[in-house]
Amino acid sequence: SPSEREGHSSTQSSHRLLAYSDALISIIATVMILPVAHTKVEDNEELRESVQLLLTTKIAVYLMTFLIVTVAWAAHIRLFQVIAHIDDCLALLNLACMMLITFLPYTFSLMATFPENVLGILLFCGCVMVIGVIQSVIVLYAFSRPFLLNEQIQISENLTYYKHHILQVIMRVPIMCFFASIFSFIFFQLSYVLLAIIIFLPYISQSLKWCRSKAIGQVEETPDSMLFYTYLPNEPLSKERVEAFSDGVYAIVATLLILDICEDNVPDPAVVQKQFGGSLVAALQAYGPEYLAYFGSFATVGLLWFVHHSLFLHVTKTTRFMGLLNTFSLAFVGGLPLAYQLTHEFPRNSQNELEAIQISCVIVFFAGIFQLSIWVVALYNEQETLHPYVWYGGREHVFMLAKLALYPCVALGTFFLSCILSKFSTSIFHLMEITVPFAFLVLRLLVRIGLALLRFIFCPNRSDLTTV
Amino acid sequence: SPSEREGHSSTQSSHRLLAYSDALISIIATVMILPVAHTKVEDNEELRESVQLLLTTKIAVYLMTFLIVTVAWAAHIRLFQVIAHIDDCLALLNLACMMLITFLPYTFSLMATFPENVLGILLFCGCVMVIGVIQSVIVLYAFSRPFLLNEQIQISENLTYYKHHILQVIMRVPIMCFFASIFSFIFFQLSYVLLAIIIFLPYISQSLKWCRSKAIGQVEETPDSMLFYTYLPNEPLSKERVEAFSDGVYAIVATLLILDICEDNVPDPAVVQKQFGGSLVAALQAYGPEYLAYFGSFATVGLLWFVHHSLFLHVTKTTRFMGLLNTFSLAFVGGLPLAYQLTHEFPRNSQNELEAIQISCVIVFFAGIFQLSIWVVALYNEQETLHPYVWYGGREHVFMLAKLALYPCVALGTFFLSCILSKFSTSIFHLMEITVPFAFLVLRLLVRIGLALLRFIFCPNRSDLTTV
Repeated sequence: SPSEREGHSSTQSSHRLLAYSDALISIIATVMILPVAHTKVEDNEELRESVQLLLTTKIAVYLMTFLIVTVAWAAHIRLFQVIAHIDDCLALLNLACMMLITFLPYTFSLMATFPENVLGILLFCGCVMVIGVIQSVIVLYAFSRPFLLNEQIQISENLTYYKHHILQVIMRVPIMCFFASIFSFIFFQLSYVLLAIIIFLPYISQSLKWCRSKAIGQVEETPDSMLFYTYLPNEPLSKERVEAFSDGVYAIVATLLILDICEDNVPDPAVVQKQFGGSLVAALQAYGPEYLAYFGSFATVGLLWFVHHSLFLHVTKTTRFMGLLNTFSLAFVGGLPLAYQLTHEFPRNSQNELEAIQISCVIVFFAGIFQLSIWVVALYNEQETLHPYVWYGGREHVFMLAKLALYPCVALGTFFLSCILSKFSTSIFHLMEITVPFAFLVLRLLVRIGLALLRFIFCPNRSDLTTV
Repeated sequence: SPSEREGHSSTQSSHRLLAYSDALISIIATVMILPVAHTKVEDNEELRESVQLLLTTKIAVYLMTFLIVTVAWAAHIRLFQVIAHIDDCLALLNLACMMLITFLPYTFSLMATFPENVLGILLFCGCVMVIGVIQSVIVLYAFSRPFLLNEQIQISENLTYYKHHILQVIMRVPIMCFFASIFSFIFFQLSYVLLAIIIFLPYISQSLKWCRSKAIGQVEETPDSMLFYTYLPNEPLSKERVEAFSDGVYAIVATLLILDICEDNVPDPAVVQKQFGGSLVAALQAYGPEYLAYFGSFATVGLLWFVHHSLFLHVTKTTRFMGLLNTFSLAFVGGLPLAYQLTHEFPRNSQNELEAIQISCVIVFFAGIFQLSIWVVALYNEQETLHPYVWYGGREHVFMLAKLALYPCVALGTFFLSCILSKFSTSIFHLMEITVPFAFLVLRLLVRIGLALLRFIFCPNRSDLTTV
């Protein structure tokens, strides 16, 4: 029929729409770090307590927002693993959905600031409900034009069964939000319980199931008829989109400090004339720590991106559990620029400075260790998820491990050194910042030397480890 | 040899590195809009003049920064059209290069704020020189491992000639910057002339050549031996990277306002208690205009992205001239959130409000008209640059034209309507914001009706236009 031909001709690849959505969502996920970043921390013992409380609250809000946005993002991935092609109408519906997702962090921070006010809960639930309705409309629209669907679904016989299952999963969240918003008028504490269930329940129930099956050894079979919307830890998650989302977060985080520098650290000509006698060099010297923080955080974020990039070059399939670990890693990466900024905000050798440096080390450590755990999880099922040449015992295996272990090891080392030699903590920290990039440049050499040494010490007769 | 095999095995696709670089550069290009955005505009006739002067300066700095960053980006594209594969070393060198590119806007704004101070010029030139040196190192490294190069170059016989030509083009800029930094000590005005030549000369000389060749009709032949670094208007520019860069700009711009809202518009509980008697709804009503500005600008930027996306679905090859037009369009898109924000900052029916609305219309108009001109330029050479079904007279041609023309037409209409009915300018503007998304949804229908009408009026016997 002509309408069907027309439908086919206006069908588009969804690649760029998804890349754009990933960019939007990654910006929004990391943006709640800004209120934390711009909290003024005083080097005053009396004020410190209250500022630390404020900071802790804000960090908790940041982490929760990050989690909520990534849950919305995971739902978006699921949806567009089912829908492989788009047309103009779906593109516009998706943009409407994006507009609401970008509004979610704001409604959540209203809820966090006014926990006893109904309005925050209502706004949040309202947003989630409208997002759910739009996603259902997208599913209904796509199933009414099957050439838009994923090929596996397109050729399957029980199209209607698929449609009902997917709609059921999607509508679960808005319906629970509907109840949460009704309960908010009666007994608002119950609303929070409901919302927490919405966010965490799939994770908790599936982790429990997974742990049980691993412990007992009994593997639950997924029915072959349902490949999507299973919420199992090994549910496939589009690798391309995990990469695009991570790139977005790394890019925003790397530039967060320069955004502030560009806006705040161009001195006023009148001030330079008055306070520094017209000497621009003197005026800029006052900003020295900011530049240092910028270069330090850019280098660290850049190198963490580099490790992530190397890791995902060797990953062939991403699972939901790997995606979750990646999200944790990214959440720590998001805190990095702040931590670096804090290290330069306090007077030399103060207790605050030492704490800031140690916090930075802890954040780098966790960002790196979660990347390492992605690798470990991938190795656990290496036949399916990794390229053959990085399998255990493979040619590149040790080199990849070294790349992933470098940052956690260095961070741990710096942490303990700064504990012991607390007087030189700043120097140790700066030394770390400068040496790590060079360590990455000569890592292949270092690994070769290390392996040669190991071979020399433990098994001087074997030679199969030399080919790294 | 074993070292060569090893080299091959560590070779990686450059796709993700380039996507990450595009994300970083697009964020940096649009970031200088923030100082403009955060300039407080007073509704006070006396202060207005000076604020307008300040605003004009800042806008000029924003536009110049955008241009400089896109020039650096174009150089980066050229470089990685020659280098098709990367390894760890190139990835790390590229990250170092990115760090300096993200620092460029800051050095430029120092230069703009202290035009008579040598330091700004020196910092800017220093950054550009180091970037040039890193890029030369990248070229030398890649030519020493030819398997990293583009296939066309890899199989060509005169590899050395290519290397020298590319190094010559790359080193031209740092060498001129070196002279500019020396002249800055002697006669700093000359430095600015030199810097302006660096940025604009390739454009001007090539545009003149192009115009002349079009006017006389004599087409200058490019020697087939040199496909890269020609600076001709039809020099190919990686379509993928133009899309990635545009996506980055659209994504940042769409979220600019929500970043501000998330940070500034969560009221303080104490203030709500005091000023609004504990009523959160009343407190949030004060922020109403901000929300309106956010939704308006998100929708406009989203729809402009949608038009861009539709256009580039039909483009098969991007040229340097199309890239330039795209840059102009993006520069205007960058100004959009501010313009929208301004429309809600002034009291109703004031002269300022009318001006802000008209500026918004002008910006939307230019952002749209440059998109339209990309289409016109592509049509000019449609066999090479467009998919057959959107060629002039093709099935989708009119529909694409309608998509591209919708925003410029609506903006122009709103502008003139707000001139005539200045009392209702705000209502007209809001009506525009609400109707345009729906117009896009039913555009295919509208085009069909329009074509039917045209056919009915002008040529009732023809029927070949109906198949849109």
